[in-house]
Amino acid sequence: MAGRHFLHVPGPTNVPDRVLRAMHVPMEDHRSPVFPALTLPLFQRLKSLVRTETGEAFIFPSSGTGAWEAVLTNTLCAGDRVLSPRFGQFSHLWIDLAQRHGLDVVIQEEEWGIGASPQNIHDALAADRDHSIKAVMVVQNETATGVTSDIGAVRAAMDAAKHPALLFVDGVSSIASIDMRMDEWRVDGIVTGSQKGLMLPAGLGIAVMSRKAMEAMEAARTRDPLKRCYFDFLDMQKANATGYFPYTPSLPLLYGLREALDIIDEEGLDQVIARHRFLAEGVRRGVKQGWGLKLCAREPKWESDTVSAILVPEGVDGAAVIRRAFERYNLALGAGLSKVAGKLFRIGHLGDLNELMCLAALSGAEMAMRDVGIAVEPGSAVAVASEYYRSADKASSLKAAA
Amino acid sequence: MAGRHFLHVPGPTNVPDRVLRAMHVPMEDHRSPVFPALTLPLFQRLKSLVRTETGEAFIFPSSGTGAWEAVLTNTLCAGDRVLSPRFGQFSHLWIDLAQRHGLDVVIQEEEWGIGASPQNIHDALAADRDHSIKAVMVVQNETATGVTSDIGAVRAAMDAAKHPALLFVDGVSSIASIDMRMDEWRVDGIVTGSQKGLMLPAGLGIAVMSRKAMEAMEAARTRDPLKRCYFDFLDMQKANATGYFPYTPSLPLLYGLREALDIIDEEGLDQVIARHRFLAEGVRRGVKQGWGLKLCAREPKWESDTVSAILVPEGVDGAAVIRRAFERYNLALGAGLSKVAGKLFRIGHLGDLNELMCLAALSGAEMAMRDVGIAVEPGSAVAVASEYYRSADKASSLKAAA
Amino acid sequence: MAGRHFLHVPGPTNVPDRVLRAMHVPMEDHRSPVFPALTLPLFQRLKSLVRTETGEAFIFPSSGTGAWEAVLTNTLCAGDRVLSPRFGQFSHLWIDLAQRHGLDVVIQEEEWGIGASPQNIHDALAADRDHSIKAVMVVQNETATGVTSDIGAVRAAMDAAKHPALLFVDGVSSIASIDMRMDEWRVDGIVTGSQKGLMLPAGLGIAVMSRKAMEAMEAARTRDPLKRCYFDFLDMQKANATGYFPYTPSLPLLYGLREALDIIDEEGLDQVIARHRFLAEGVRRGVKQGWGLKLCAREPKWESDTVSAILVPEGVDGAAVIRRAFERYNLALGAGLSKVAGKLFRIGHLGDLNELMCLAALSGAEMAMRDVGIAVEPGSAVAVASEYYRSADKASSLKAAA
Amino acid sequence: MAGRHFLHVPGPTNVPDRVLRAMHVPMEDHRSPVFPALTLPLFQRLKSLVRTETGEAFIFPSSGTGAWEAVLTNTLCAGDRVLSPRFGQFSHLWIDLAQRHGLDVVIQEEEWGIGASPQNIHDALAADRDHSIKAVMVVQNETATGVTSDIGAVRAAMDAAKHPALLFVDGVSSIASIDMRMDEWRVDGIVTGSQKGLMLPAGLGIAVMSRKAMEAMEAARTRDPLKRCYFDFLDMQKANATGYFPYTPSLPLLYGLREALDIIDEEGLDQVIARHRFLAEGVRRGVKQGWGLKLCAREPKWESDTVSAILVPEGVDGAAVIRRAFERYNLALGAGLSKVAGKLFRIGHLGDLNELMCLAALSGAEMAMRDVGIAVEPGSAVAVASEYYRSADKASSLKAAA
Repeated sequence: MAGRHFLHVPGPTNVPDRVLRAMHVPMEDHRSPVFPALTLPLFQRLKSLVRTETGEAFIFPSSGTGAWEAVLTNTLCAGDRVLSPRFGQFSHLWIDLAQRHGLDVVIQEEEWGIGASPQNIHDALAADRDHSIKAVMVVQNETATGVTSDIGAVRAAMDAAKHPALLFVDGVSSIASIDMRMDEWRVDGIVTGSQKGLMLPAGLGIAVMSRKAMEAMEAARTRDPLKRCYFDFLDMQKANATGYFPYTPSLPLLYGLREALDIIDEEGLDQVIARHRFLAEGVRRGVKQGWGLKLCAREPKWESDTVSAILVPEGVDGAAVIRRAFERYNLALGAGLSKVAGKLFRIGHLGDLNELMCLAALSGAEMAMRDVGIAVEPGSAVAVASEYYRSADKASSLKAAA
Repeated sequence: MAGRHFLHVPGPTNVPDRVLRAMHVPMEDHRSPVFPALTLPLFQRLKSLVRTETGEAFIFPSSGTGAWEAVLTNTLCAGDRVLSPRFGQFSHLWIDLAQRHGLDVVIQEEEWGIGASPQNIHDALAADRDHSIKAVMVVQNETATGVTSDIGAVRAAMDAAKHPALLFVDGVSSIASIDMRMDEWRVDGIVTGSQKGLMLPAGLGIAVMSRKAMEAMEAARTRDPLKRCYFDFLDMQKANATGYFPYTPSLPLLYGLREALDIIDEEGLDQVIARHRFLAEGVRRGVKQGWGLKLCAREPKWESDTVSAILVPEGVDGAAVIRRAFERYNLALGAGLSKVAGKLFRIGHLGDLNELMCLAALSGAEMAMRDVGIAVEPGSAVAVASEYYRSADKASSLKAAA
Repeated sequence: MAGRHFLHVPGPTNVPDRVLRAMHVPMEDHRSPVFPALTLPLFQRLKSLVRTETGEAFIFPSSGTGAWEAVLTNTLCAGDRVLSPRFGQFSHLWIDLAQRHGLDVVIQEEEWGIGASPQNIHDALAADRDHSIKAVMVVQNETATGVTSDIGAVRAAMDAAKHPALLFVDGVSSIASIDMRMDEWRVDGIVTGSQKGLMLPAGLGIAVMSRKAMEAMEAARTRDPLKRCYFDFLDMQKANATGYFPYTPSLPLLYGLREALDIIDEEGLDQVIARHRFLAEGVRRGVKQGWGLKLCAREPKWESDTVSAILVPEGVDGAAVIRRAFERYNLALGAGLSKVAGKLFRIGHLGDLNELMCLAALSGAEMAMRDVGIAVEPGSAVAVASEYYRSADKASSLKAAA
Repeated sequence: MAGRHFLHVPGPTNVPDRVLRAMHVPMEDHRSPVFPALTLPLFQRLKSLVRTETGEAFIFPSSGTGAWEAVLTNTLCAGDRVLSPRFGQFSHLWIDLAQRHGLDVVIQEEEWGIGASPQNIHDALAADRDHSIKAVMVVQNETATGVTSDIGAVRAAMDAAKHPALLFVDGVSSIASIDMRMDEWRVDGIVTGSQKGLMLPAGLGIAVMSRKAMEAMEAARTRDPLKRCYFDFLDMQKANATGYFPYTPSLPLLYGLREALDIIDEEGLDQVIARHRFLAEGVRRGVKQGWGLKLCAREPKWESDTVSAILVPEGVDGAAVIRRAFERYNLALGAGLSKVAGKLFRIGHLGDLNELMCLAALSGAEMAMRDVGIAVEPGSAVAVASEYYRSADKASSLKAAA
């Protein structure tokens, strides 16, 4: 198909040309004396990205799923209890992974359309008098429903319950797009992948661990830690200390990561986060005020700044919109998964993105909807979103985000 | 600035990723035994692009301006008379080049907003009883005003005048986008550059010459041909015959040209031309019916399928729209040049392009116009254009173009 | 440093320009309807690479170490006994991984410089009357010592012992370079990574499993299979069946893999293997006849066609040669690891390689050796190797390899 | 063919990966407000490259041949006399170009194997009492014979003759490789192309003009200047002043030029020149002391640091060596041209180059020579060259060059 493809799934996201260029490198010896000059700063910069000074960053050649596995298998023992709310496909999958590794997961079912409930977490922890729950697992941004949980509120709930459980957060579709304050919120383990806010191809699983988590890891060894080797933090830690890896890392992705972090630094992390909010708000207004459609997120406080899940009217198959957009308009939208299959389509708005890209996605989704019989008004979403983009001041939007 | 840049000047155009990849090559010996396997097919394929079987194609390491110079200096002699209508900046520049090489140009001034007048050409030639006019120079697509001349009608006028002048056509912003029927219209020299419909960076000046033009070249040698060496057709012809060049060609551009021609072949030249018409028509309807603005092209028959020049209301500076679009919305629009400076802005819609790209350009131009005080209705152009894009059938559009 | 870097570690290997170009792609939706057209053929082609018709191929976003882990954790249960010879750093690491996952590894220590002993394997299996040994793990090419085990002979020994154990082979530094006949030798699990014979960056862990191994996987589920989720074959199998993956794959590497397999097909797998033997033989002759030095491999039958480990004279530190080559001559050589640290340096000769690259590596290693005081004769290795390269007929070399 | 191609023609030269990456860019508007930030520094940096403060640099989308044409057609008038020694194919071609533009060239025939004779130039100028000779045209490095002329000595000869002629120098295969001191030697026009020492693909024709040359240009306008438009310095000067070009420049090459100049700056121009001398000296010693063959350059003082032309023994066809090297060893050597066709082959050693690349070229040329029956000793050139590379100190070599 002629012309540019418009990629608006919530990951993988558009990789900036600069990053693709940075990855176009000949191979080199990953045990050479000059290699650490590339790698050592990366660990430090990943920590800044989640605003931690005391944490420790790990980079695995894997997807984000591998980093999930690393966090759990390094810090917990067979049969350990963990608490986790489930409110979408990705919170579900993380729970599934935990169970398959032999953890005893206390699942809090929440409606698909809202996020983790600090109150429910508080209550469950308060009831856990003997502290049998070793960790709380929360998805910061549920990619399937376009819902963001309030991690600061979860931390406050845990504190209120005076519970010592570790706090593990899935930040796959939020890191570098939605604020993460690891030290302030005392998050113990954060997981992300390279193919979302980091604007890279998939292939890096990233975890940042708190000191408390690393101590839990030491303690687990005296009990019966879950088995792992590829995802072992200790092997990594030992090799990383001098800038190396226990096995061959993916060089292009490390070079790409350096460039992506440069891009984020140049824009400024605060501004990156504000830009995501700003662009997302335009899309949401277009959807609600322009098209008169509803988001899967039940209330504004749950609305995600990285992906909007748009409910299609009863009787229409959301998948038909996606198929039409892909085949006719060169636009990739995200599908409804599992429980919400067919009920919605998703517009990813994260990573390397600007106003015109969002307006093009709205235009394309609108044409596809009209083609399959959804009677939205032509140009209506663009009219609303573009007026918002015009009038809103990025700087003040930044202030609001800070 | 975050996100993708939207390039909508009428050249250079967006280079497809495939072409950029094809150009990312290590150097090689341009005199090696395998080199002709790359080059020889290129000449043949360029001929197909302008629908000639008897013509001869030349590729210079230059811009299109260089190819202009090649066509004139190889076929004409000092003091020769040529006839050329002037109706925009690029017809003006070609005339200027001819004059600086010592040609005597009979200039037909036409309004900026219409194209070459077959009638006027007929009359001038009919009046030229002794055939002192050696060539007629016509710009097929005047990039400055978004006006397309009817080359078939020019040929008919020349025939009606029974005049033997050569017909030279500037196809810089039309070849591979607007139909060119070299053999059918008996065009004697066509000039183009790589950075427009060919979807490449600038750097190749291309000329396709008829047998009659090559014979005129031979004849000119017996008179007092204009001086040239770098742009000499004979040197090229001799070296090209075996797949080589008289001096070092730009390898990446030759590899890119091969890939670009593959892309055109895969879509089909007829469909490429139909797509340009289809996308252009959406833009024009958005401009006229949506915004209620006028094009520089005075009548539909002059409207260009590769660039639309949009007149801004009196009292507004078109340059302000362009500046705002560039600085705030990451959108590059074309400026008004010379006589029409400030009076218009241009949306290029040629090359590797699709519906969403055009809608994004319309959205961005609309926001920029509103920002500088032009009271167009929000979403109005997108509404009209997207409905056209939805309803129109590409296949029937193709038929119309054929 | 000016000029090209000469990368002669035994992995990562030189990535052909074509492959780097193929990897330079914008992202796309890995759940789109067109994605399987890319992925489905890859599985089939990986099978051809190890000459199996009945096996099943898996591609993980990981290094080869991850694929090791996948093979063991999917097919074995906690406490299962496995047999493995240890004769270098990589056989050691695989054993370590097995142990850390709770397997009971019967280790056969072999001298570093020879490979797996079919006789010893036979004897151990013959003595294992109750078939407590569930699998035999053998490294086909021990990268640390430049030693190749004879997998066909290992299979024959297992057959002679009439033992039903699975046969797992580490082919990380041999696949696509040294012959692997999965069906003929009835290998049950083969592991490789992308960054060696496959000429890609690291980032893909590849496993090919026999039917017997997949049945063992099913049986293990009724016992107490090792825990895994990221590396689960069933999840992969289910998603792969329609061309998708259970989590986001690394798109550039999949595109790169397709291109690398094209390159191998164009040369022909037999010829690729023959070329590796041919180039390796030149290097070995240069080392032995030219320099008068010894290889770590004790006998010609153990010599690896992908890497030569060259013993430096007593009293010289092999690491000094490597450092000098890297810093002064822009040449990366492999170090001696663990037991052989300092005693040798390694020249990797696998992947996208030809005669002049090998001669350059020999020249560079020679200069570095002379610089640190090893009295090899200037030009001696190049003289011998280049005469071999001239006289030997690649075609006959191919026949010998077949 | 597997493995890396070894490109050792004297241009195009190997383009560093960094430069290829820098060229892999999306298009942009060459009239945008940010474009001059790219272009303006380039002019200044090109001046530094030829060590001028008062000169003016021009960049044309063309090959070096185009820049030749620009220098002559902008400064001279029809029928003007110029003086030029001819001692190889490229001095011949420049003379031919001058003649075809109507200049009256006084040709000094020198033997192919020596360079411009300062004495002969002095004598011709001294005899030209009425200063009818307007310019002296000298090739600094004759690529066809591997001969370097002494431009400082030419200037001294012109001074001694007290002759006011302009001094034009072809630096195509010398600039950025062999020293050029424009201000010190009062050179009035220097021509180069992008595909040699500048390590870029072909496509940029570069000229640097002195104030005196620019004044001559003004004066020529009052006489009867040669015709030109594409290569007009005034058009360029006017547009360049604000960072723009009179027609569309080749963006990738401008980005590549910036990167190439960065690379040169990082190494340091003096060191770049010293490295060329150092690498060339190794090759020459290999040829003479190792192989016992002769260079086309008659005396050491004529030997070029960018290309060595090696005479093959009587009765052998040099072209056979080149063909064999290309087809069997993936090595591109330069051919003998015109008068010396078949009598020699050339090893280009300029641009992005190091010791191992030169040794690989020597090895490959040696194998090819032996294959076609030239009885050079195996390994002999590598032995001599590598010992030179080891013993010689780059720093002292630098001093010698300074």
